[in-house]
Amino acid sequence: MIIQKTENSRISSFDPENYSFGDHFTDHMIICEYENGAWGEAKLMPYGPLPFSPSNMAFNYGQACFEGMKAYKDSSDEVYLFRVNKNFERINKSAKRLAMPEIPEEVFVGGLKALMDIDRAWIPTGEGKSLYIRPLIFATEEGLKARVSNKYMFAIVAAPATSYYSAPVSVKISDYYSRAASGGVGFAKAAGNYAASFYPTQLANDEGYEQIIWTDDSTHEYFEESGTMNVFVRIGNTIYTPPTSEKILDGVTRDSFITLAKHKGIDVRVEPIAVKDVLAAQKDGSLKEIWGVGTAVVTTAFKSYGYQGENFELPVLSEEESFALSLKKALVDIQTNAAEDPFGWREKVEKDVLQTV
Amino acid sequence: MIIQKTENSRISSFDPENYSFGDHFTDHMIICEYENGAWGEAKLMPYGPLPFSPSNMAFNYGQACFEGMKAYKDSSDEVYLFRVNKNFERINKSAKRLAMPEIPEEVFVGGLKALMDIDRAWIPTGEGKSLYIRPLIFATEEGLKARVSNKYMFAIVAAPATSYYSAPVSVKISDYYSRAASGGVGFAKAAGNYAASFYPTQLANDEGYEQIIWTDDSTHEYFEESGTMNVFVRIGNTIYTPPTSEKILDGVTRDSFITLAKHKGIDVRVEPIAVKDVLAAQKDGSLKEIWGVGTAVVTTAFKSYGYQGENFELPVLSEEESFALSLKKALVDIQTNAAEDPFGWREKVEKDVLQTV
Ligand SMILES: Cc1ncc(COP(=O)(O)O)c(C=O)c1O
Ligand SMILES: Cc1ncc(COP(=O)(O)O)c(C=O)c1O
Repeated sequence: MIIQKTENSRISSFDPENYSFGDHFTDHMIICEYENGAWGEAKLMPYGPLPFSPSNMAFNYGQACFEGMKAYKDSSDEVYLFRVNKNFERINKSAKRLAMPEIPEEVFVGGLKALMDIDRAWIPTGEGKSLYIRPLIFATEEGLKARVSNKYMFAIVAAPATSYYSAPVSVKISDYYSRAASGGVGFAKAAGNYAASFYPTQLANDEGYEQIIWTDDSTHEYFEESGTMNVFVRIGNTIYTPPTSEKILDGVTRDSFITLAKHKGIDVRVEPIAVKDVLAAQKDGSLKEIWGVGTAVVTTAFKSYGYQGENFELPVLSEEESFALSLKKALVDIQTNAAEDPFGWREKVEKDVLQTV
Repeated sequence: MIIQKTENSRISSFDPENYSFGDHFTDHMIICEYENGAWGEAKLMPYGPLPFSPSNMAFNYGQACFEGMKAYKDSSDEVYLFRVNKNFERINKSAKRLAMPEIPEEVFVGGLKALMDIDRAWIPTGEGKSLYIRPLIFATEEGLKARVSNKYMFAIVAAPATSYYSAPVSVKISDYYSRAASGGVGFAKAAGNYAASFYPTQLANDEGYEQIIWTDDSTHEYFEESGTMNVFVRIGNTIYTPPTSEKILDGVTRDSFITLAKHKGIDVRVEPIAVKDVLAAQKDGSLKEIWGVGTAVVTTAFKSYGYQGENFELPVLSEEESFALSLKKALVDIQTNAAEDPFGWREKVEKDVLQTV
């Protein structure tokens, strides 16, 4: 790895007690370029702009995919990553579906650890705080013909994230817009999937909903995801989440929730969730919770949902009663080294890794 | 408009008798930036790279859409654009669906004419040659949260295109992959749509097909588009093309073909094309032609198609017999000022427009 440390650290401009997510990027980034059929040497360098022309193929044909991860500090300022391998495998699944080259493990994992080590001062401590990490791959060839690019860039950038707390929100069950086609790219963290979701989300916002529960595009009868999260429904004491497919992102948080729930003896069913079954459970009083899960906020609980013009309230549960909130706490405790890690999910970032990579 | 002319024209490195598409970009480009809720002043400047960091929201969330247009020189070296307003309207439809700001007409049309005027020496002459023009809008804010960007860039870049001739190709009728979801962004020229199509196209290439005929994602029973073109089928002396919808791009060439065909007295039906009807027409001998249309090659005729493992040959027709080829010629003649333009499609680029914009 080529190491080019910054001579102008911006850390003094960062107040870890008072910042918003995305205002600050850490001092460094990882860059690795692909050309002539091979990835070059990874480089750790100061975070900042690089030259790209408007004919860059990523801007034109959208070959771009990313990951979202976090680094956490425990009470002794040790730094931990979480289930790194899951994100490594997923970025390559996304890359493959977008006809992009897969990134080698040493570039992804080695780059991640080097960046976390050198920028460890940027990882905030305290309730729910963490460093958000964004690995991404995008096309970099200049060209005006719609075809696969011959050049790519892999990058890792990072920004301090604020507390995960998010108030329960109201969601709209989509009956027109959708995020994924059968035989499409819904399972990939493809850049274009997010752009496609913004306008429907704005329309839902205009109707007073904070998010959308996406349903299948052919019938709108089955739940897929919620916003940019996987979705869970609790009916009685059983929790349901749709099986992953080519339309549903295989979320790391989703998988962790399933594992933790089973570990706690909760009945978990990975099966399609029909809108009509949710409405029936609402009617007979057995619908207890609906929530979304993802790396960014871990859990967003829903307080109400709208479907075809009608609004439905969900029960208000205490943290002890709520599966969403108790599973969230169990997960965060593992991530931040506040609890045992029976699953081997946590990974400590050693100091001075730079000397060994 | 701010004008910054190049001091190092690269035109002497361009041999108009011997080049490939995309090897050369013209000397200049148009740039216009959007910030604080408004578009700034457009700028004509030397073509080249600009600074963007890997956290650019276009790379991460795919807010990016584009247009594809051409400028043609006639035998007296006059320069013409074609149906500019169609592309102007469409880029704004795409932008709206991706929650991006619409571009004002004076920036789009004014920029286009200024660029064509200043770079007119780059427009090649001769059979089927033209200048390919790429207007695009993409997000430029730096951010790691999946949300609408607050900053955008509009750009126009251009590159000499080679002859349109394309040999008839074989296509695969898709029975698994799809390019558009119901309630999705298929009708938009969204960057992400193209990235999503590359891998299925590679798989089809591996099976010996050059392109894919995309079918609806729920049933795969109806034609949508072909590659990055709209699709036409001729059965007997009637031609069919699917109606535009939220899944099908409203192509300028498609619309021009429909208009020209009606003008020539050909029976044109804008209605869904069922795979089973095509196969039935194949069987009874009434299936005459299938072809794709788009700005880049105008028409690609198909010589054969594959469906669920079986291959079907299409008749070989002369240019006089073929509706695809005779309509193509009629269109190109209008575009290049070799024929009357009864529809008012052609638009001459005046000299020294720069002095007036
Ligand atoms: C569309 C979508 N679904 C689900 C998730 C949740 O995935 P993860 O738990 O791996 O963050 C994400 C990412 O955060 C996402 O972008
Ligand atoms: C997906 C798709 N369909 C159809 C077309 C044809 O549209 P037009 O005739 O406006 O070039 C294009 C663009 O060339 C396209 O990208």
